[in-house]
Amino acid sequence: MPEPPAPAVVGVVLFDRFEVLDVFGPVELFAGLRDKFSVITVGPAAGPVVSAQGVRAVADHAYAAAPPCDIVLVPGGIGTRTLVEDRSFLEWLAAWSAGAAYVTSVCTGSGVLAAAGLLDGHRATSNKRAFGWASAQGTSVSWVPEARWVADRDRWTSSGVAAGMDMALGLIAHLHGEEVAGGLADAVEYEWHRDPGWDPFAALHGLVPG
Amino acid sequence: MPEPPAPAVVGVVLFDRFEVLDVFGPVELFAGLRDKFSVITVGPAAGPVVSAQGVRAVADHAYAAAPPCDIVLVPGGIGTRTLVEDRSFLEWLAAWSAGAAYVTSVCTGSGVLAAAGLLDGHRATSNKRAFGWASAQGTSVSWVPEARWVADRDRWTSSGVAAGMDMALGLIAHLHGEEVAGGLADAVEYEWHRDPGWDPFAALHGLVPG
Repeated sequence: MPEPPAPAVVGVVLFDRFEVLDVFGPVELFAGLRDKFSVITVGPAAGPVVSAQGVRAVADHAYAAAPPCDIVLVPGGIGTRTLVEDRSFLEWLAAWSAGAAYVTSVCTGSGVLAAAGLLDGHRATSNKRAFGWASAQGTSVSWVPEARWVADRDRWTSSGVAAGMDMALGLIAHLHGEEVAGGLADAVEYEWHRDPGWDPFAALHGLVPG
Repeated sequence: MPEPPAPAVVGVVLFDRFEVLDVFGPVELFAGLRDKFSVITVGPAAGPVVSAQGVRAVADHAYAAAPPCDIVLVPGGIGTRTLVEDRSFLEWLAAWSAGAAYVTSVCTGSGVLAAAGLLDGHRATSNKRAFGWASAQGTSVSWVPEARWVADRDRWTSSGVAAGMDMALGLIAHLHGEEVAGGLADAVEYEWHRDPGWDPFAALHGLVPG
């Protein structure tokens, strides 16, 4: 996979009732390397979008006017439950993602990618408490119940909420080396789980034997 | 310290160039317990506030119109460097905080609390890379270089960025028990560092011998 030109544009998809840490964990990390990444947000319309937690964030662009990006990031959150029924959104997401070098998700965001057909023929993971729901969104996906994140070619999907930070650091390491990613984690005083197979939550939530 | 009435209002202070994870890590956790906490945001004016990472969040209320809250949360971010010179802001913060049961900060937010006189006579910590700057904001503060977070009566301060999540869980445990906080951490697939003395970053950033 060729490295995207620097700074690579990370395009974060906001939607009604997105999960805040799914978005702002990875944003904290990508934006921490200003020479390598720039972050844009897209939403139903340019302007405020309400999160699942109530606090609002601002979409820079409406979906329909979204500029191209190199790395798509789709968060989870309770809003995914209605989003997977929104055919026009899913068609837009598939078309926008076609121009990206990487398509990524955090938590139940992988259910949205699956519903858009973007994970067909790929391995993927998702939130451990909503794994049944997420995995039902794509029958041509090889779902991996025990993983902090799964990287399959240009599709990177993480487990629930906090796992998005580990995946973001994993993608940064993939693009720019372990040292850059490790230094960034240290700078924000985050204990990075470097092993994508580390997943104590799969057994905790009953997906694999404890 | 009496437990604040439920749901306790967590008042998050947004300012120009706040650090996103300092805000949204704790918000993810407090808002995850809907029956126990509600979150409001305050800013220079009601409306969008730009973060240090570029993504904008929305302030529900202007500082001048901020309703009372039970738990004040002040994030860090590069914007703190000008905020500590803003006397009218610091006076407002001190007045608003006077009505709260707990006054908390993440990262260099403790420099802002110190500049407002809110940490005088208390122990406190801060971001490990900006510890010199933060600790210079309050000479009547007992600064603790090695700590994930410091809880001294009603003042709770955390180390840099990601440490805010551990402190938030620590405060939730203090108010509602370890089991509630641990269950919340598991739900968002976050490996909580329960020990406020756990701090590998102090030595890494040269504050204590490695």
